[in-house]
Amino acid sequence: MHLYGTQQVNSQGHLTIGGVDTLTLAQQYGTPLFVYDVALIRERAQGFVNTFKKLGVTAQVAYASKAFSSIAMYQLAAQEGMSIDVVSGGELYTALQAGVVPSTIHFHGNNKSLAELEMAFEAKIGCIVVDNFYEIETLKQLAKNRQQQMAILLRVTPGVEAHTHDFITTGQADSKFGFDLNNGQADEAFLQTYQDEYLQLLGMHCHIGSQIFDTVAFGVAGEKLVDKMAKWKETYQFTCRVLNLGGGFGIRYTEEDKPLAPQVYVEDMIKVVQKKVNEVKLTMPEIWIEPGRSLVGDAGTSLYTIGSHKTVPNVREYIAVDGGMSDNIRPALYDAKYEAVIANKADQAATETYTVAGKLCESGDKLIEDAQLQQAEAGDILAMFCTGAYGYAMASNYNRVARPAVVFVEDGQHQLVIARETYDHIIANDKALTLKKG
Amino acid sequence: MHLYGTQQVNSQGHLTIGGVDTLTLAQQYGTPLFVYDVALIRERAQGFVNTFKKLGVTAQVAYASKAFSSIAMYQLAAQEGMSIDVVSGGELYTALQAGVVPSTIHFHGNNKSLAELEMAFEAKIGCIVVDNFYEIETLKQLAKNRQQQMAILLRVTPGVEAHTHDFITTGQADSKFGFDLNNGQADEAFLQTYQDEYLQLLGMHCHIGSQIFDTVAFGVAGEKLVDKMAKWKETYQFTCRVLNLGGGFGIRYTEEDKPLAPQVYVEDMIKVVQKKVNEVKLTMPEIWIEPGRSLVGDAGTSLYTIGSHKTVPNVREYIAVDGGMSDNIRPALYDAKYEAVIANKADQAATETYTVAGKLCESGDKLIEDAQLQQAEAGDILAMFCTGAYGYAMASNYNRVARPAVVFVEDGQHQLVIARETYDHIIANDKALTLKKG
Repeated sequence: MHLYGTQQVNSQGHLTIGGVDTLTLAQQYGTPLFVYDVALIRERAQGFVNTFKKLGVTAQVAYASKAFSSIAMYQLAAQEGMSIDVVSGGELYTALQAGVVPSTIHFHGNNKSLAELEMAFEAKIGCIVVDNFYEIETLKQLAKNRQQQMAILLRVTPGVEAHTHDFITTGQADSKFGFDLNNGQADEAFLQTYQDEYLQLLGMHCHIGSQIFDTVAFGVAGEKLVDKMAKWKETYQFTCRVLNLGGGFGIRYTEEDKPLAPQVYVEDMIKVVQKKVNEVKLTMPEIWIEPGRSLVGDAGTSLYTIGSHKTVPNVREYIAVDGGMSDNIRPALYDAKYEAVIANKADQAATETYTVAGKLCESGDKLIEDAQLQQAEAGDILAMFCTGAYGYAMASNYNRVARPAVVFVEDGQHQLVIARETYDHIIANDKALTLKKG
Repeated sequence: MHLYGTQQVNSQGHLTIGGVDTLTLAQQYGTPLFVYDVALIRERAQGFVNTFKKLGVTAQVAYASKAFSSIAMYQLAAQEGMSIDVVSGGELYTALQAGVVPSTIHFHGNNKSLAELEMAFEAKIGCIVVDNFYEIETLKQLAKNRQQQMAILLRVTPGVEAHTHDFITTGQADSKFGFDLNNGQADEAFLQTYQDEYLQLLGMHCHIGSQIFDTVAFGVAGEKLVDKMAKWKETYQFTCRVLNLGGGFGIRYTEEDKPLAPQVYVEDMIKVVQKKVNEVKLTMPEIWIEPGRSLVGDAGTSLYTIGSHKTVPNVREYIAVDGGMSDNIRPALYDAKYEAVIANKADQAATETYTVAGKLCESGDKLIEDAQLQQAEAGDILAMFCTGAYGYAMASNYNRVARPAVVFVEDGQHQLVIARETYDHIIANDKALTLKKG
């Protein structure tokens, strides 16, 4: 069994996180429950932030909050000296409610609405990452109408697509995001913005993939962007102050995943970019990165109560838990793999093979196929590891199942950060039928 | 372009539903918006209900509300003489709040919690569809403790798995649901329940698949269940009063789908079951069915506003709308196909091929690949057909995007049935961080 962060097994054989018995958490807050290991989140944040400091590189480490957005999470990221990436008015609203300093907020998205952009101007956020020509047009008009400055980055697609240990380079990317770096779109976007009276072009952004376990692709993408920066410098005497290399830093879900430490990603990235910058005789730009999953993914653990059990003789043993695809759609959506332990039997051998099913009324509602687990009984607490990213964030009310509670634990303390949904919250927007039968 | 139900194109070239201009709806309620054609829902409901009446077969047509659960929808189903299937405490709560007569409610699920079962007893619902041995044990104890009767059906897996035009029969089904009919589990469940003092066994339930365009598989499953009923009659002098053949009746999403009328499913089903019942000398049982998708699927249309546009030269034209996988996850989750029209240009030729992307920050957030559409401009309204089932029901706050509003239209009238979510609703359960940096 692989334990993450502060996880331990106590003398009662129970899984603990942040020094707190998960059985206590399940009892106090109920299940399903998301538990975040705050110390692990801080450690990761510091791994990124301090490496830049150590290397003397001006940087922003922005938390890509689509991985897990909540008021407490924004406050935690801010405590650790991170900027905040938001991708919608809802995330921006939450960050502002959390008291995040607006100038540290960056706004992403391929189809931001006018209302969302107005909200960003109103709040005077730090930077809008511009995705497409329609957005440039909208932004220029909006900034002019408001006579208000706004810093921007251009999101470009460099034709580098990375996943796990591989990457490919393509002439152009078939992506809904960004200006293609290789077919003239990025240059055109540059020309439309770099001299604008209100938009202040800071530089470029790219995002090359997710669950990346190698640093080479970041370097390749960085070199391409620096080449473009050099060209704009030479031709238009324009200096890009910022190079944003996005996120995609991998985490361990199962034994197949071999993640790198934050330090390694940052050091390798800086080495390649610094070399290239020297080559083309530019000043080193600020480096911005956007970790999301790598901050919160393996810091999150889902606790479920085990209920029914079904045997399909000679085929499979199903055990069912009190949540499912409504609180974690990644197994159904991405065929994502997870590991788990029976939290109240964590000191016992994992002698059994179960398929962990959810309680939703759909055959595809399975959380783990062929999980290696301790002998399961109804009432046991299942702890499913690494559910901190894109778990709660993608949760739904499918089957009108209430979304779980979320707690943070640290140094023996625990606190509720998102309350469990009630049935009344679920039906709050429902109206009675007024149409009469014809 | 295929129009569904009451959809028409008016003299302005706009798509209308239920006699209401979709442009008016988009303007009044905003987008994204789900619009339900109430007349089409009523027509489908009557198609099922009246065919049973015509054939003189006692029946319950239960709306499988996981397809779309809301207070107004339950009230509409009840108006049409339908029973209600729920699969969770949340659906049960909503149905009760809607004023549904409790005795018409059936409760499904592979892992109902004790709290949910207590809620069902408290409300005195019509029937619990029992899924597994753990549930039998829990129910027997609960009914005894409460000294309260409860009608039950046994959910069995007959080893018939149907999809579109095919079906397979298997020795046993590798399913998380139900008692296997062929390996002794169903008999064991029968023995554990048929003489219970409080549980009143009504009969059996099976559900053989979804998007089924042929009636043969329903007949095959029906025959298997009737054979089992005959065996229980012969051996234990027990009469199953109810045979529930579930749902799975297909609808048209694209031209590849050739659905049957409700009448055809019912008539063919009854013909086979009646014949088999006569053969084995049983009395015809009540027939219960559970349409969900076939009632609301093609009655629902999503309206979106088109925003940004991106060209990947020689590869693809992307247009982006103001919703996406947060309000319809079926394309990403099931690779589901849809058709669409630009609602304000519905009288124009669909000369263009676009990939319709959502606004969510994820490359996989595409709603339709290679949609045939009218020439699109920012501000156009896109109407995506057949989103009435498992659309709103599976909606999330991914990216903290607010869930859309839902309106019903009928005979020129329209009414809001679910209000658009606000940012405050999204953060309502969020708590501030109280943990201090160590």
